[in-house]
Amino acid sequence: MRVVVPFDAREPKTRLGSVLDEAERHELAERMLADVLDAVTTSLESATVDVLSTAPLGRDGEHEHEHERDGVGVTVDDRPLSPAVDDAVAETVGGGGTLVVVMADLALATPAALDRLVGTDGDVVLAPGRGVGTNALVVRSPDFRVDFHGASFLDHRQEAERVGHVETVDSFRLSTDVDEPADLVEAFVHGGDRTTAWLRDRFELVVDESERRVSLARR
Amino acid sequence: MRVVVPFDAREPKTRLGSVLDEAERHELAERMLADVLDAVTTSLESATVDVLSTAPLGRDGEHEHEHERDGVGVTVDDRPLSPAVDDAVAETVGGGGTLVVVMADLALATPAALDRLVGTDGDVVLAPGRGVGTNALVVRSPDFRVDFHGASFLDHRQEAERVGHVETVDSFRLSTDVDEPADLVEAFVHGGDRTTAWLRDRFELVVDESERRVSLARR
Repeated sequence: MRVVVPFDAREPKTRLGSVLDEAERHELAERMLADVLDAVTTSLESATVDVLSTAPLGRDGEHEHEHERDGVGVTVDDRPLSPAVDDAVAETVGGGGTLVVVMADLALATPAALDRLVGTDGDVVLAPGRGVGTNALVVRSPDFRVDFHGASFLDHRQEAERVGHVETVDSFRLSTDVDEPADLVEAFVHGGDRTTAWLRDRFELVVDESERRVSLARR
Repeated sequence: MRVVVPFDAREPKTRLGSVLDEAERHELAERMLADVLDAVTTSLESATVDVLSTAPLGRDGEHEHEHERDGVGVTVDDRPLSPAVDDAVAETVGGGGTLVVVMADLALATPAALDRLVGTDGDVVLAPGRGVGTNALVVRSPDFRVDFHGASFLDHRQEAERVGHVETVDSFRLSTDVDEPADLVEAFVHGGDRTTAWLRDRFELVVDESERRVSLARR
């Protein structure tokens, strides 16, 4: 089994630009990636794990070192996500293996949630994301092609039905990718250790009773 | 086992006011309630099911009839949610039973998701909602008190730890309550039959590639 974790090392998390500056977006993205890799390597001990990054990782030595310690490889590929993942499908599933794709911004991912993902039978197993996205998937059919644009969950479900049997996994943790400011609340409350530590240094939870809404405010 | 489904029959879904008029908010809220009741009665066949409503149900005869057909009771209680649910805890759990609370706007709820909720051991089992809410819970300790204000998931988790062993259930379907316009996309794609039929009569899915966002637009 091979796990690929796509990561945008160039311009991560642009949609958080209204609340985080560029340096902060890089920092948070690397913390979330490290939390995802922790969950992946704990859940899938015997799997080969690769970060599929648009640029070399490690703006500071610390993070480069962490990835090495985990035995996680880094593949730099500056193409768009879909052809890069299709190549991984061809290599891994074409050779008889199983490919798992887990997005790098799933700050709430836990080993238990990933266990449910890979423990679900099906030629293709999809973890739907908020906003009709696809946040994680398991590919066991070499004929499956990905398309991460637009309403990708609907496209992936249709494509999966074309090639075989499709299942979905019902997980709040895997459905929550951290794309927009409202998602930071979820990461703050339910996220992995590095992500929550970073957020709690900078933000606090604010409850607006009249709006019946919880948000983050700078400390 | 008793299931209580709290429902605001007076001013449902006020935070959808920017996209739905008042009559539509009532219609959608009743469709979502009916879908939730379908999932509840399918999952928990032998349970007693009560809608805990702030006002009498059934603006039209059709829906009143549906609730009757399902063998679902309606309790009208115009108090705030927390004391009304606390009374249900005292009655049901104080008498040795198990109380399950499922919010009426969980349009994505399925029997399988509810099976996982009630199949999880613990004195209190919580299904976290987006925005630090609590969308469903199982109460097996008579000492537990609810508080649905503010960051209710954190308050409920703390209270549950006080009275015994707490577990959470990791479900995208149970985490998604339909409160704000962005939630309508989730209901449109993943919702129950009545909810999706109602939404699809009025809206269509629009993919904005540049914003990398999927939303609903009026037909």
